[in-house]
Amino acid sequence: MKRIVILGSTGSIGHQTLDIIRSFPHAFDVVGLAAWTNQDLLLEQAKEFQPRFIFSKTKPNGTLVPPGCQFISDLAEMVANPDVDLVVQGMVGNAGLFPTLAAIRAGKQIALANKEPIVMAGELLTREAAKSGAQLLPVDSEPSAIWQCLRGEEPHKSVKRILITASGGPFRTRSLESISSVTPKEALAHPTWSMGKKITIDSATLMNKGFEVIESHWLFSMPWEQIDVVVHPQSIIHSMVEFRDGSIKAQLGLPDMRLPIQYALFYPERLENSALPRFDPLKFNALTFEPIDPGRYPCFVTALAAGKSGGVYPAVLSAADEAAVYLFLDGVIPFSEINGLVSNALDRCTPIQNPTLEDIVSADGWARDFVESSVGKL
Amino acid sequence: MKRIVILGSTGSIGHQTLDIIRSFPHAFDVVGLAAWTNQDLLLEQAKEFQPRFIFSKTKPNGTLVPPGCQFISDLAEMVANPDVDLVVQGMVGNAGLFPTLAAIRAGKQIALANKEPIVMAGELLTREAAKSGAQLLPVDSEPSAIWQCLRGEEPHKSVKRILITASGGPFRTRSLESISSVTPKEALAHPTWSMGKKITIDSATLMNKGFEVIESHWLFSMPWEQIDVVVHPQSIIHSMVEFRDGSIKAQLGLPDMRLPIQYALFYPERLENSALPRFDPLKFNALTFEPIDPGRYPCFVTALAAGKSGGVYPAVLSAADEAAVYLFLDGVIPFSEINGLVSNALDRCTPIQNPTLEDIVSADGWARDFVESSVGKL
Repeated sequence: MKRIVILGSTGSIGHQTLDIIRSFPHAFDVVGLAAWTNQDLLLEQAKEFQPRFIFSKTKPNGTLVPPGCQFISDLAEMVANPDVDLVVQGMVGNAGLFPTLAAIRAGKQIALANKEPIVMAGELLTREAAKSGAQLLPVDSEPSAIWQCLRGEEPHKSVKRILITASGGPFRTRSLESISSVTPKEALAHPTWSMGKKITIDSATLMNKGFEVIESHWLFSMPWEQIDVVVHPQSIIHSMVEFRDGSIKAQLGLPDMRLPIQYALFYPERLENSALPRFDPLKFNALTFEPIDPGRYPCFVTALAAGKSGGVYPAVLSAADEAAVYLFLDGVIPFSEINGLVSNALDRCTPIQNPTLEDIVSADGWARDFVESSVGKL
Repeated sequence: MKRIVILGSTGSIGHQTLDIIRSFPHAFDVVGLAAWTNQDLLLEQAKEFQPRFIFSKTKPNGTLVPPGCQFISDLAEMVANPDVDLVVQGMVGNAGLFPTLAAIRAGKQIALANKEPIVMAGELLTREAAKSGAQLLPVDSEPSAIWQCLRGEEPHKSVKRILITASGGPFRTRSLESISSVTPKEALAHPTWSMGKKITIDSATLMNKGFEVIESHWLFSMPWEQIDVVVHPQSIIHSMVEFRDGSIKAQLGLPDMRLPIQYALFYPERLENSALPRFDPLKFNALTFEPIDPGRYPCFVTALAAGKSGGVYPAVLSAADEAAVYLFLDGVIPFSEINGLVSNALDRCTPIQNPTLEDIVSADGWARDFVESSVGKL
């Protein structure tokens, strides 16, 4: 049995991870569940999966915690427990950095759905993973596709480029003028994927695709010039790898996060799970591809530039974006201002190369403050 | 340097194999070249590649054979030579059976473009390969795609099904009534692939796709019910593998036989070759899929049934088809009679299960005679 901790168990990834675990009751021992504020659901999950540890922002009333289960106030302690094999990192945003680092330093397998930590501190995290022997397993569908396509290949000798696909989000065909005034509700209506709110907005701006380029750069040690992005509105081909001999491998499937989650949970095994959807090519009209229009997706351009600049820029990018996305969701700023705020933060931050963890955390804090204090002053 | 023999060096596969070898002059030592009747081109190739051995149907005038090169009258002797590592099998039709068997018994690597031997004697050839340790490397683009998609996977535990793609050939959208009267010229105008004549006609009838199902059954030890075929008119996705977890891997590329040839020649390495074409998804309108219409492609149905029946049926299938295709190319029978002649041969042959090599050869001869003597009597 694989001994597993799920960070963000009440969120979209956590929910779907528990779905998979339900389908294979003898394959996993859920050692820990961690949520932030949704304590009711966390306690319900604790009753069903009987973990040894639970974490939430505030300590629940002791009478509500199931017997045999212990509240723990430090996520790092939970993930570093020697009885843990695999940490599913399904938290949202930059808050995932410390628990991810703790799991890496403890040499765990980490199924990484929360991409912000690797975006903000990719160099640091991959260096620490190389030291401890921790394995970073991508759960995001695009990096998972690349990981699957690279299986059995020699990535450093054989790869010409990786081709990440992007659905283009809900505003791919909308007039450019009207995009500035879209509502949170419109931006949350993703055409192909059902995900959490933060990532859905990042998908509408294509910031998320920029994050995936940065994530892929670090996870697969892939030079920037060997990573391309192509719009593929059907979200069936999750990404492709082009090899030096001209051959391309692609990974396909219906857009359902449970597929990459299960792949990471069981890697290298592939188990039958009748609950998972199957792609039938005969049911699809056509698979199409389009170039990315940089004028339509300025956040994508911003993200790529920040990733390539390195240092604390990606941390500023990720933190400023997180702050701006919540301001948009709260109705404080229009959709079109997300990129303006993030770009301004990148322009104004103090550049530091080879940043320490402290530099990254401090840049993150600075960027959030900057964005919040800039509202209305663009 | 890999020491290589090319069977069918003056044909389409041989020609393209030598193209690859030209691009990597230090990677290969051409030990032998074998052709059938095109002696002029064979001798020209011998001058350029300086093999130790050449073979052709009749012995060339000694003064024409380059110094250091020896005419050899037995293909089996050429492929079994201890100085040979890899045999490229690019012959046409059932004539490839004996040299393939000789290469297998000698434990060679065999890059198999000539699929008829494995169709007619799949059970025998794979059993002999298991004994000798010979490796059968598919060169055909569809089995090569499956082979690439299975790389690094656990085929016997993880695969749900393989999905072979078919272009549908030149008559995919032509009215059923008019197909019976198509000319050899029309049937040779394949919409996506440039290949030899025999395989191009087999692609128009989809007999070739039936052969690929049989080939895949034997090469990948894949049960019949786990092999499906889907029409994909663009010939970009060369085949797919669906895994038990719902994930699908596909191999893509422009339709160019040099890609699978190079893959087999260098396996497991993937080397840059600027002469090979690259697929750019942005240059394609759409990748589409359609079911196979059995009424349009009776040869496909016939081939599948013969493959599943086993015994000498696949040998009868392959021999009767070869005879019928040449009768069509010679203008003796109409296109629509190919299936009738093949089906009749299958109906009338003496069924033998677990056939010996002699049984297979005898069934092959019987089927050719039967088809030739049946002309005009359907």
